[in-house]
Amino acid sequence: MLETTIAAIQPPDESAMADARALHGRLTKPAGSLGALEELSVRLAGLAGACPPPLPEPAAVAIFAGDHGVHAQGVTPWPQEVTGQMIGNFLAGGAVVNAFARQAGASVTVVDVGVATPLPVQPVVEASGPVVLDPSTPRLVAASVRRGTRDLAVTAALTRDEARAAVQTGIRIADGLIDAGAGILLTGDMGIGNTTPAAALIAAFTGADPLDATGRGTGVDDPTYARKVAVVRAALARHAPDPADPLGVLASVGGLEHAALAGLILGAAARRTPVLLDGVIAVSAALAAAAFAPDAVSAMVAGHRSAEPGATVALRHLGLDPLIDLGLRLGEGTGALLALPVVTGAVRVLHEVATFDSAGVAEK
Amino acid sequence: MLETTIAAIQPPDESAMADARALHGRLTKPAGSLGALEELSVRLAGLAGACPPPLPEPAAVAIFAGDHGVHAQGVTPWPQEVTGQMIGNFLAGGAVVNAFARQAGASVTVVDVGVATPLPVQPVVEASGPVVLDPSTPRLVAASVRRGTRDLAVTAALTRDEARAAVQTGIRIADGLIDAGAGILLTGDMGIGNTTPAAALIAAFTGADPLDATGRGTGVDDPTYARKVAVVRAALARHAPDPADPLGVLASVGGLEHAALAGLILGAAARRTPVLLDGVIAVSAALAAAAFAPDAVSAMVAGHRSAEPGATVALRHLGLDPLIDLGLRLGEGTGALLALPVVTGAVRVLHEVATFDSAGVAEK
Repeated sequence: MLETTIAAIQPPDESAMADARALHGRLTKPAGSLGALEELSVRLAGLAGACPPPLPEPAAVAIFAGDHGVHAQGVTPWPQEVTGQMIGNFLAGGAVVNAFARQAGASVTVVDVGVATPLPVQPVVEASGPVVLDPSTPRLVAASVRRGTRDLAVTAALTRDEARAAVQTGIRIADGLIDAGAGILLTGDMGIGNTTPAAALIAAFTGADPLDATGRGTGVDDPTYARKVAVVRAALARHAPDPADPLGVLASVGGLEHAALAGLILGAAARRTPVLLDGVIAVSAALAAAAFAPDAVSAMVAGHRSAEPGATVALRHLGLDPLIDLGLRLGEGTGALLALPVVTGAVRVLHEVATFDSAGVAEK
Repeated sequence: MLETTIAAIQPPDESAMADARALHGRLTKPAGSLGALEELSVRLAGLAGACPPPLPEPAAVAIFAGDHGVHAQGVTPWPQEVTGQMIGNFLAGGAVVNAFARQAGASVTVVDVGVATPLPVQPVVEASGPVVLDPSTPRLVAASVRRGTRDLAVTAALTRDEARAAVQTGIRIADGLIDAGAGILLTGDMGIGNTTPAAALIAAFTGADPLDATGRGTGVDDPTYARKVAVVRAALARHAPDPADPLGVLASVGGLEHAALAGLILGAAARRTPVLLDGVIAVSAALAAAAFAPDAVSAMVAGHRSAEPGATVALRHLGLDPLIDLGLRLGEGTGALLALPVVTGAVRVLHEVATFDSAGVAEK
C-alpha cells in the first residue's frame, strides 16, 4: 500500500500552471499585486491539473495522537496523561483547534495512533470503518499501532513494521477523508513530548545540528532544553539514521503521529489533493514524505512558521514559504486552520474575479 | 463633529486587558503558545472594556474612492478613468475585494468621496442616507467632496474645509456601519495615483526620507519611480506640512480617500470598535488619525504588511505588527480581509476554549 501510494504521486501539471499564470494577467488587478497568493494558486493549479483548480472545500483536519517513550528522559514538564486528556477535550469541542475549526467550517477527525494511557472517551470509528465529514462533531478513530513508542534514547522508537503500519494508517485516513469529499486536508497532532522526535527527524533528514533543530516545545526551561538537545544528539549518534531510508528514520527516532502524518501527506499527494501543514510536527513528517516521494512536495502548503526553530530548518529544506508567521507553537492543527482562508482566497480569485475585458476596465 | 469624535476616544481599559491575560493562562494550551494572537486578543479586550471582547462580527469593508490631481505629473501608467471603472467592478462584485468579502461574509460599502470622472453606476445611498449591511450586495454612497484633488506638486491638494469634510464623511460612515451592527470595520481604498499622496503623508508624519516612504505602487518602471520620489520630495519642501496639524497635512499633500479613512478610523475608535487596516493607503491615513488622537491606535489592527516600503515605515511609527506578510500590494481592502479570520480567531479563543479545570486536563 505504501509503495502503490508512492508510485501514484505525479509531478505538477506545467500546462495548468501556465494557464493560471496567464489568467492572473487578465484579472482586474495590477500584475503580481496579490504577491504570494498568485504563486500559491499557480501551484494548486499544477497539483490539480486544472485551471482554476477546485476550491479547497470542505476542509478536514486530521489530528494524529501518540505518546513517546522518550518522555522518560524528562524532555517536557507535562505528564504523559495529558495526551489522552486532550483527546477528550478535542471530542468535547473545547480545544483551540475546535474553536478555529468551527470558525473555518472544517471537520475534525482525531486518530489514536498510539496513545499510552487509557482514553477518557470511546472511539466512534474503527480504523477500517467509514470516515465521516461532519464539521459539527469531532470523530475519534481507533488505530493504535502500540501504546506509545519505545524510548529513542535507549532503543529504536518503533520497528520498521510498526512505522509502516502508522504510515499506512495515515494513507487510509487521507483516502477516507478525500472519498468523503474533503477538498483539502489539514495536519494536526497531539502527543506530549513529540517535539523531541520531531527535532531528531529534522536533524536526520536535513543534516542540521541538533541544537538548530531542537526548540523549547511547550516552553521548557534551560536545563530541560539542554537535556532535550543532548537526547536528540545522542539518539542521532546511536541510530545513525539514513535519510535515504525514511521508514528507517521514522522507526529509529520518530513517533507514531509523525509517521501517520507522513502517510496522510503521501495519501493526499497521490490523490492530487492539497495538504495544509501545521507546525514543527507536521513539517518533520513532511520531510519523511518528501524522502519517500519528492513530488509529494507539490501537494504541500506550509500553513505557518512555528516558533520552533526546527520548523524553519525543515521548511527551508522543503523549499516552502509559510503563509502565516505569528509565533504560534501550539500544534493541534491550529496554525494550518488560521492559514486556510488564505489558501481558499488564493484559489477563489481564479474562479470569481472579473477580467479587464469583461469588467470594462482600462489597462495601463 | 471632528472635535467631538476626537474627544470621545479613550485609552484602553487596563482592567479588561489584565482579565484577558489571566484567562489566557487558564485555557487548555501552553501559556503563550498562541503567539501574537494572545496579545491581539488582550488589546481588543482593552478596546472593548470587556473580557472577552465581543466577536468582531459582522465585518464591514468601507472602500473610499477618490482621484488625484498629481496624476498629471505622470506618477502612474494607469489612466484616471480606472478609478470610476473599478467602482463599477466593485458594485458588480467582480473585484478581488468582492471575492474575499464573500468568503469572509463581509459587507462592502463603496464611498465616492472624490472621483474625477463620471461614474458608470448610480449611487444607491446618499451621504446622509441609511447605511445597510448586506454581505450579498455592495452599496455605493454618494459623498463627493470635489471631483479629485488639486495637483499637490503645484498647490495644496485640498482646502482645510475640504479635508475636514472628507474626514467627517469617514466618521459618518463609521457611525452608520456601527449603528447598522458592524462589529469591526475594514479599510478599503481605490484611487489611481493614490500611493503618491500616501508616501507624502508618511514622510510628513514620520519624518522619513521620501525615498524610503515611496514605493512602486501598482508596479511603475524606474523613470516613473524616480519622478514619483521627486514629486513627493518637492511637495514636502513646498508645503512644509506640520505633523502636529493633521488637517493641514491632509489638505496640503493628502487625498480625499486618505482623509476619509482617517475619519473612519477616528469614528471606529470613538465607538470602541476595532478597525482592521489594509495597506499603504490605510496606514498613511492611520498616521493622520493618530496625530488627531493618539489613543486611536488602540482601535487599530494592522491587517498586513504591504509590499510598499512606506507601509513598513508607517507601521513602525504606529507601533503595530501586521498579521499577514505575503507581498500584497493591491489595496481595495484585500489585505485586511485576508487577516480578518485571524482577528476573529484570536477573540474566539477567549469565548470558546475550555479551561484546564473544566476540561479535566492536567497542568505541567
